[in-house]
Amino acid sequence: MVHHPLNPSFAAEIQRSFAAQSIMQPVGAELSRIEPGVVEIALPYRDDLTQQHGYLQAGIITTIADSACGYAAYSLMPAGSEVLSVEFKVNLLRPAKGDKSLAQAEVIKAGKTLTVVKADVYGVSGAAPDRILVASMLGTMFCVRNAAPTDA
Amino acid sequence: MVHHPLNPSFAAEIQRSFAAQSIMQPVGAELSRIEPGVVEIALPYRDDLTQQHGYLQAGIITTIADSACGYAAYSLMPAGSEVLSVEFKVNLLRPAKGDKSLAQAEVIKAGKTLTVVKADVYGVSGAAPDRILVASMLGTMFCVRNAAPTDA
Amino acid sequence: MVHHPLNPSFAAEIQRSFAAQSIMQPVGAELSRIEPGVVEIALPYRDDLTQQHGYLQAGIITTIADSACGYAAYSLMPAGSEVLSVEFKVNLLRPAKGDKSLAQAEVIKAGKTLTVVKADVYGVSGAAPDRILVASMLGTMFCVRNAAPTDA
Amino acid sequence: MVHHPLNPSFAAEIQRSFAAQSIMQPVGAELSRIEPGVVEIALPYRDDLTQQHGYLQAGIITTIADSACGYAAYSLMPAGSEVLSVEFKVNLLRPAKGDKSLAQAEVIKAGKTLTVVKADVYGVSGAAPDRILVASMLGTMFCVRNAAPTDA
Repeated sequence: MVHHPLNPSFAAEIQRSFAAQSIMQPVGAELSRIEPGVVEIALPYRDDLTQQHGYLQAGIITTIADSACGYAAYSLMPAGSEVLSVEFKVNLLRPAKGDKSLAQAEVIKAGKTLTVVKADVYGVSGAAPDRILVASMLGTMFCVRNAAPTDA
Repeated sequence: MVHHPLNPSFAAEIQRSFAAQSIMQPVGAELSRIEPGVVEIALPYRDDLTQQHGYLQAGIITTIADSACGYAAYSLMPAGSEVLSVEFKVNLLRPAKGDKSLAQAEVIKAGKTLTVVKADVYGVSGAAPDRILVASMLGTMFCVRNAAPTDA
Repeated sequence: MVHHPLNPSFAAEIQRSFAAQSIMQPVGAELSRIEPGVVEIALPYRDDLTQQHGYLQAGIITTIADSACGYAAYSLMPAGSEVLSVEFKVNLLRPAKGDKSLAQAEVIKAGKTLTVVKADVYGVSGAAPDRILVASMLGTMFCVRNAAPTDA
Repeated sequence: MVHHPLNPSFAAEIQRSFAAQSIMQPVGAELSRIEPGVVEIALPYRDDLTQQHGYLQAGIITTIADSACGYAAYSLMPAGSEVLSVEFKVNLLRPAKGDKSLAQAEVIKAGKTLTVVKADVYGVSGAAPDRILVASMLGTMFCVRNAAPTDA
């Protein structure tokens, strides 16, 4: 699927927003890919983000998947927009373990007001072929147009 | 709706599990209610858990809602069970602000294998009447029976 | 929750739209309640709407729940609007049997563009106290404003 | 993704079940593909299945998507199983029009008890390259094992 960005500086703005999104810093997440309609976020494994069985907590998996979906939607919005999550659904398929978790989001329908995005989250250990699908998300993002940057 | 617990020590076990769920400590969440089929988790406001607009990040709201749903389901499971999140869907209704966020989960169908739970998340500022609904979740939890406590 | 309608003729318009919604006629569904933010649709049991086990098909339950959600959202929209379903999630809790199915929808957040609605579907046999919850839906509806009635 | 069927007669059983699923007959749906983990259902356009704007009703789209998901899950279950829909979420992306609608379902995680399936629904007019994505579903199916065929 080919995606057409409307905002030529989308990549720089996503990186700036990600750095300002203070939850991403404490959990150690990183933007690993930014393309039109496609964004990936990687989260190295950390003991302090696990649930009672030692696997990555469902809410943390959701946090990186939702962020990746929001930025994938944002990458196709016009300059001056802001993105908000309307809703998302996530299926947790397998325990999330491995050296890192990788959330890959891609836009499946970009609209003027609403953008629908899917994301798959993988557990990655060492080489890429070993990755396993741990969660799948389907969500809806809202475009706030002409958000005044100085007033926000 | 009246719920009938099968495990007389469910409340103590939920408190023990919550203390061991290491993600809850760093975010500052607290169990504020444990009854058969109903669990509440409160999260005081913190600057470091917000997204780029200064509101509580969607993934954090989801984390406390999912935990509340999981424990609400667990409260009705037989002794020796473990609970896993199968899937959940969340609608983010309004920006999450206020002195604290409160996730209230209640079982709507308890089954032998699957339990369906809904949760509402409120932003609370000062007195309880001021609370506003910020998110609503509908999710499915899985009961792992006869989980061997010494082997887990 | 108190809902405030913006369109004084919402009830008559919902009845007119329902009569024009050609899928509702063949399945035998009826509008059983229309109030601001709340709509109910009843579906008498029919042999020809069942799945392979003799219960009402999940898609049929979803059809009446989605219609009830759409009209509940519409009841709070300004005159001249149209409503579209953005997405919904449904948990199927028990086999749908009984003399009729009743979908009860209520708005949980009415917005200018998006309205979030929940619906519960009950199986009803004889007197109301016997009703059992068979499905629960959480969905998002979109308001198309100033839909030109003569051009539509 | 390669799927491994456990039941050698899954295709014949899906065809038999589909013929017995009485809702599929009145709406005119047809099984157009049955492979391990993958099932497609086609629904020719009919005037009497539309909503108030002349497009295929959301509930009908959901009906064929849910059926395709259920059979895709069933194709990987052991002989003697039955499949039930636990829950699904659907995003309605564009008005469903065209000569026919095509629901393509594929298993993303097959488990002993739960199977997670995604489905895309397309509107198809004439040649295949013209198809447009009208809806996307993500759902969970339950395997009832050792369902006694003579007692069911």
